Amino acid sequence: MSPSDNGDALVISSDPYHPANLIPELCRGFYQLGWVTGTGGGITIRLGEKVYIAPSGVQKERIEPIHIFVLPYPQPYPETDRVFLRRPSLNLKESACTPLFWNAFELRDAGSCIHTHSQHAVMATLLWPSGEFKISHQEVNQMIKGVRVGGTGRALSYLDTLVVPIIENTPNEEDLKDSMHAAMVKYPDAAGILVRRHGVYVWGNDWEKAKAQTECLDYLFEIGVKMKLAGLPTELSGEQNGNVAI
Amino acid sequence: MSPSDNGDALVISSDPYHPANLIPELCRGFYQLGWVTGTGGGITIRLGEKVYIAPSGVQKERIEPIHIFVLPYPQPYPETDRVFLRRPSLNLKESACTPLFWNAFELRDAGSCIHTHSQHAVMATLLWPSGEFKISHQEVNQMIKGVRVGGTGRALSYLDTLVVPIIENTPNEEDLKDSMHAAMVKYPDAAGILVRRHGVYVWGNDWEKAKAQTECLDYLFEIGVKMKLAGLPTELSGEQNGNVAI
Amino acid sequence: MSPSDNGDALVISSDPYHPANLIPELCRGFYQLGWVTGTGGGITIRLGEKVYIAPSGVQKERIEPIHIFVLPYPQPYPETDRVFLRRPSLNLKESACTPLFWNAFELRDAGSCIHTHSQHAVMATLLWPSGEFKISHQEVNQMIKGVRVGGTGRALSYLDTLVVPIIENTPNEEDLKDSMHAAMVKYPDAAGILVRRHGVYVWGNDWEKAKAQTECLDYLFEIGVKMKLAGLPTELSGEQNGNVAI
Amino acid sequence: MSPSDNGDALVISSDPYHPANLIPELCRGFYQLGWVTGTGGGITIRLGEKVYIAPSGVQKERIEPIHIFVLPYPQPYPETDRVFLRRPSLNLKESACTPLFWNAFELRDAGSCIHTHSQHAVMATLLWPSGEFKISHQEVNQMIKGVRVGGTGRALSYLDTLVVPIIENTPNEEDLKDSMHAAMVKYPDAAGILVRRHGVYVWGNDWEKAKAQTECLDYLFEIGVKMKLAGLPTELSGEQNGNVAI
Repeated sequence: MSPSDNGDALVISSDPYHPANLIPELCRGFYQLGWVTGTGGGITIRLGEKVYIAPSGVQKERIEPIHIFVLPYPQPYPETDRVFLRRPSLNLKESACTPLFWNAFELRDAGSCIHTHSQHAVMATLLWPSGEFKISHQEVNQMIKGVRVGGTGRALSYLDTLVVPIIENTPNEEDLKDSMHAAMVKYPDAAGILVRRHGVYVWGNDWEKAKAQTECLDYLFEIGVKMKLAGLPTELSGEQNGNVAI
Repeated sequence: MSPSDNGDALVISSDPYHPANLIPELCRGFYQLGWVTGTGGGITIRLGEKVYIAPSGVQKERIEPIHIFVLPYPQPYPETDRVFLRRPSLNLKESACTPLFWNAFELRDAGSCIHTHSQHAVMATLLWPSGEFKISHQEVNQMIKGVRVGGTGRALSYLDTLVVPIIENTPNEEDLKDSMHAAMVKYPDAAGILVRRHGVYVWGNDWEKAKAQTECLDYLFEIGVKMKLAGLPTELSGEQNGNVAI
Repeated sequence: MSPSDNGDALVISSDPYHPANLIPELCRGFYQLGWVTGTGGGITIRLGEKVYIAPSGVQKERIEPIHIFVLPYPQPYPETDRVFLRRPSLNLKESACTPLFWNAFELRDAGSCIHTHSQHAVMATLLWPSGEFKISHQEVNQMIKGVRVGGTGRALSYLDTLVVPIIENTPNEEDLKDSMHAAMVKYPDAAGILVRRHGVYVWGNDWEKAKAQTECLDYLFEIGVKMKLAGLPTELSGEQNGNVAI
Repeated sequence: MSPSDNGDALVISSDPYHPANLIPELCRGFYQLGWVTGTGGGITIRLGEKVYIAPSGVQKERIEPIHIFVLPYPQPYPETDRVFLRRPSLNLKESACTPLFWNAFELRDAGSCIHTHSQHAVMATLLWPSGEFKISHQEVNQMIKGVRVGGTGRALSYLDTLVVPIIENTPNEEDLKDSMHAAMVKYPDAAGILVRRHGVYVWGNDWEKAKAQTECLDYLFEIGVKMKLAGLPTELSGEQNGNVAI
């Protein structure tokens, strides 16, 4: 299907929970949280065979339903020939995160994926210089219970260890696709992927679970950074595998 | 009474101060404060023999009156056979905090109880590694005057010492009931209970007093954490029982 | 005039800039800034011979015009027999700050006075343990230009030194009246008075100037605290009276 | 043209994207971000030969379209005899930033310029005591991609080094014009100018780009300050011109 401005019916709805209404509303909330300032970040929602995606390079707190792209899922052709069900009639391009969102759909059967530039996520990648943000169960916070194994599986227990892989940033967002894919394969239980000096990708079965998990992980990054800066332990060394008091 | 979707009249009201309207509104405010992100935290209101409780595991900033549970107080049967006056017709479960809220009703005759995951509360539990968050009167802040003895008694004086017990977290929220109960018995003057790496429970005679006290305690946790990180004294040693300058 | 619930006409107005409409609106904004949580803090507005004051001990973000007290200015009798033009018909008491607000009216001819519990103000009183918060002109920030000499005089220059006296807290807010009065006499150029471990009082010719000056001072307290915690100089020593580079 | 209150048609429009509607709305948002408290800061928009400017010394979150000044561009006479198309009928003066905004129009052909007193910008000027805020590409954050060369040119790459000149503050805002001009000539690639102990000026081709770039730079100031305070490297020394791990 060639680009066209047909397909408005795909994004015009009086239902506030229609993805084309939800994406603008959620992005306004993410802006308030400092997650998507400077046109960065965003969210995708997939309902069965339709994927809803915001444009690239626009103020995320000012998106309107008519700005939303709709793509078929799965894509009938290789992604380099990306196919659309609807493109906005404006001079817009789909989010540069699109191939990364696709990782979440294909590898985890996710129904939604969120990308933030949260400073808590970025600081976590700087203060955890290895390839993992990791907090062991003795140090972990209650919010770990809001995260699911692999993002779409069972809820984590308070006793589990949370690990979020950290991949290195690349000049072009699209080029993160392969390293994100590799990290998701290597860490099948991870509910998100941190990108060094950049932000985080988090997914879930639907937009509500993706959003709740993004909030939980962001909370954990924030408190982890605070703990590390305050000199509080956030991770057990190899020998410490029992009861550990601060 | 078996679960049913009858009882909508118990939660549908045009009065903005009806508990089923207040709980959603207050939760939206708590979300803005970072107290109930990731579906955590919440508030209960008790009006005489009726207790209003939000569902578990939902986005707290998106609750609607029809999502509210109503329970009789006191419960006619042991709590393991919890009884309801109204259950939402959706696939919802009452807040996992329910048995902890009951502690506040039964031990303090509270009319409302609030549970937050505030990072100030959590940091306070990490920087006060003993079983008490304690600030002596010389170091204490004006906001102590907003807290009541036992949560439902007389207001504290600026000269009083504030003590909030800290209990250890458990994998399941419900399992905190006994240790919270024990701490409330041991500390009859405490207006709230901190849970390590988790958050805080605060109660009051009604929702207004519970909310004001939660704000005062959260303020004290925040300023206490700032003072400790800045190297300012927050607690007097045993010998220092007189005038102490910073 | 004895207490009565007459006088509603004094607080019911369709003009959004009527003091009885402004006070609730401004208090909602102050709540968002963290200045008046836990029922603390507030604002008074004086228009000629009428003084508008909010109640004590209520949620400041939920005040309504009908909750506003109106007092004559000056008071015909000594303040211990405080006189009212209008008292709300509810079970309310006027703000405990009333005698402190009166200091601003009597000593500075102020048209408005604001009291906040801002944590920036409180931290400033803890990190400046002497009786003054002081930043010399070489270290001072642009925002000093938003502050007026004595609160109601000419605007400060960027080259001026800003001094805000710090008085010690007392168990009862009313008991601060005399020490605040003494500090205002001793520091005729000060635009506000800090209260240790408590907050700040700031006044101006009208509510707009009082609010703008409160924002400027709060900004200066915040940046002063950040500078001090970062080890940056905020005050010149006696010998350093010339050009000083960081 | 002499001052008059004619010209209301220049600022009354039902189009929410008319500059006289946008400036008040954007200023409300900037107030929420802490960028324009205490009447400081602001934004100008230029549409071809018309320049829209807010008044000086007013609460930026309460501006209304009728408060907006309209000036012709370019100015027919030397700027000391500033010419207006419309002046508000109130007792208002145009923003003291006007000559600085003109720098952005004349030197960069900007369509909008924003001035904030963001504490992140001010802290950056204090922690980077030299004449430049500089972060090399190895340390730089993803948000650098949201900044354009010279403010109105091509987007920066993640591999570029970001440099923002820092000029010294002056007692009168207008007196910054020459040093800002000199810095813009010396740093033709800079997208903004920091003013020590004061704030930042950022411009772009239009208001959307100016706002997005202000957000990106503010993000970079904030994370740069956090990194420096956490002891993380933000700039490479002369010898470190290759791969550098933290």
